[in-house]
Amino acid sequence: MVKELRLALIGFGTVGQGLAELLLEKRDWLRAAYGLDLRLVAVATARSGFLARAEGLDEAELLRLAASGQPLTAYASAEVKRWPTVGEGLAATGADVLVEVTGTNLRDGEPGLSHIRQALEQGLHVVTANKGPVALAAHELLALAARKGVHLRMEATVMAGTPVLSTLREGLAGARILSLSGILNGTTNYILTEMGQGRSYAEALAEAQRLGYAEADPTADVEGYDALAKTLILAALVFGLPLRPEQVLRRGIAGIAQEEVRAAQAEGRRIKLVASLRLRGVGGLSQASAGGQAAELPVEARVEPMALPLDHPLARVDGVMNALTIESDTLSSVTVIGPGAGRRQTAQGLLADLLAIARSRS
Amino acid sequence: MVKELRLALIGFGTVGQGLAELLLEKRDWLRAAYGLDLRLVAVATARSGFLARAEGLDEAELLRLAASGQPLTAYASAEVKRWPTVGEGLAATGADVLVEVTGTNLRDGEPGLSHIRQALEQGLHVVTANKGPVALAAHELLALAARKGVHLRMEATVMAGTPVLSTLREGLAGARILSLSGILNGTTNYILTEMGQGRSYAEALAEAQRLGYAEADPTADVEGYDALAKTLILAALVFGLPLRPEQVLRRGIAGIAQEEVRAAQAEGRRIKLVASLRLRGVGGLSQASAGGQAAELPVEARVEPMALPLDHPLARVDGVMNALTIESDTLSSVTVIGPGAGRRQTAQGLLADLLAIARSRS
Repeated sequence: MVKELRLALIGFGTVGQGLAELLLEKRDWLRAAYGLDLRLVAVATARSGFLARAEGLDEAELLRLAASGQPLTAYASAEVKRWPTVGEGLAATGADVLVEVTGTNLRDGEPGLSHIRQALEQGLHVVTANKGPVALAAHELLALAARKGVHLRMEATVMAGTPVLSTLREGLAGARILSLSGILNGTTNYILTEMGQGRSYAEALAEAQRLGYAEADPTADVEGYDALAKTLILAALVFGLPLRPEQVLRRGIAGIAQEEVRAAQAEGRRIKLVASLRLRGVGGLSQASAGGQAAELPVEARVEPMALPLDHPLARVDGVMNALTIESDTLSSVTVIGPGAGRRQTAQGLLADLLAIARSRS
Repeated sequence: MVKELRLALIGFGTVGQGLAELLLEKRDWLRAAYGLDLRLVAVATARSGFLARAEGLDEAELLRLAASGQPLTAYASAEVKRWPTVGEGLAATGADVLVEVTGTNLRDGEPGLSHIRQALEQGLHVVTANKGPVALAAHELLALAARKGVHLRMEATVMAGTPVLSTLREGLAGARILSLSGILNGTTNYILTEMGQGRSYAEALAEAQRLGYAEADPTADVEGYDALAKTLILAALVFGLPLRPEQVLRRGIAGIAQEEVRAAQAEGRRIKLVASLRLRGVGGLSQASAGGQAAELPVEARVEPMALPLDHPLARVDGVMNALTIESDTLSSVTVIGPGAGRRQTAQGLLADLLAIARSRS
């Protein structure tokens, strides 16, 4: 017996197209292996508005339009209905799951935040790769999802499809998490790795930009804002804590000199940009107190370059790879290493979340 | 609203006691965080037979009896019912889940195999830390569980409570697994790590025995049988393949000389006992064909010492730590590193499985 999950996909950039590709490529296998039909019934972009077709949209046709630079409104079917906004389209369309993959906005989370709120209010499950809404409001949104009896999943927001959120919430169920330390930004890890091989910061950054790892304005990565957003998401999911950005001590890597990287190496250490969350009263890597944080917070949150000893599980995670080390009351240290970005890798996180929702409805 | 899951625990050695300790320690927190009451309604040992109490057994009293060397039949309650065998007790007792933690027997899987078969036939969920039954018959038992509409989970059989089976089946849902390579035996990894620091094989083995990592007869570990059992479990779970022990190429570490370990180090490599499963037609570490395996098997299965380059994610996993590297069609390489043994660590795997079953019934 094949079940069906009807998807409304908001955003059709790299990640949205990546998901459409996986749906197309894996359709037959997902039916056979999971008894599941993931049917794309709506897609929306800022340019084309909200398009829906109850029988399902053809991912190949959508991908062809996107690849040739055409608006999705050129989709060739009389049965497609259109609304100018996501709000109107969502209210009128019968989908089971909102897949929110519009661009990340760390200032106010919009427009994704409004999309997710509306979908949860309507009783839709939500799966997202958009860091903004969940970095700023995961606590509120998870509570709303719980009230409505639906799922809000966000695996793809931290380390793309590398399964860390599912590991923390499900794989490690029953363990009390004491601390997390992660390399959560591939761009900065690439730059630091290259600096370890003799390049200057400016050379390494330029190379990262040439390879497409860093943006023209690299601020969000190199100043630690991207890692900070992921830290906020982890704080909400793991510690149930609605941490605000200003409650996280943040230092980026832009000020690091090549000499510092080499000096650390000479001492058998590696400088990494480490995002960490630690329940207060539990020991760990960083013994210094975090200045500027209210003393009453139950968790200490930091994003900062650290010189890790070589036997630390994060020390040898190089290039664009990401990793998260989890300390708990039953398992001491568990580390998950994997890709932290990429079209297909991020879409994998969305797919795993969709399959988790399908599993819970069986 | 607190739900209840009623457990029948078969086996009260290290792992069974470890679970009883976690149930006792975490009862209040599990009720608060998961809305779940895990109630131990039966316990059985070879010495004391099968004891049951519908209102629940007191773990503290059971642990006290075990610690003082007394039989569990000395449990002080008139409401406890007794049966001489697990078969009779299970048939008469209303439990939701069988927790099977009798000793591993890799020859015929007994007595655990009979316990698990009976419980599944009765429509009980099963959670086990016992490698024997699932190494030899996971394929058959999973099919039986599916027919009966119940769960059979075995996280604790591979890398103790480090979440690898849940990662493969749930965290990576939707990804097609192409290959697995793992350090799945802590004893041999400890010995190889010590040899890398200058000890002879005999010295390292003696030290492992002194620390309790290796048994007086170390054959199961050093000849690769333990890693082979875990390979069979992974083959059944990940590839749906009922692999037999003789279909796995197996080489242990007993024949390795200190000079080989040092020579590999001099070349920037580390010798590790690697268990691997690889879909045929997919490239990887090992290019040589496996002698003695039927050509038609869709998966190549090996347990053997390998000299890994230092940038391989398993190369730096030292001491008793275990790790599994997973290659898939969407995520290239994901590695999970964590403890592979231990009383509390293994009980954590059972606990996570119990919570997964509870989640699926919500």
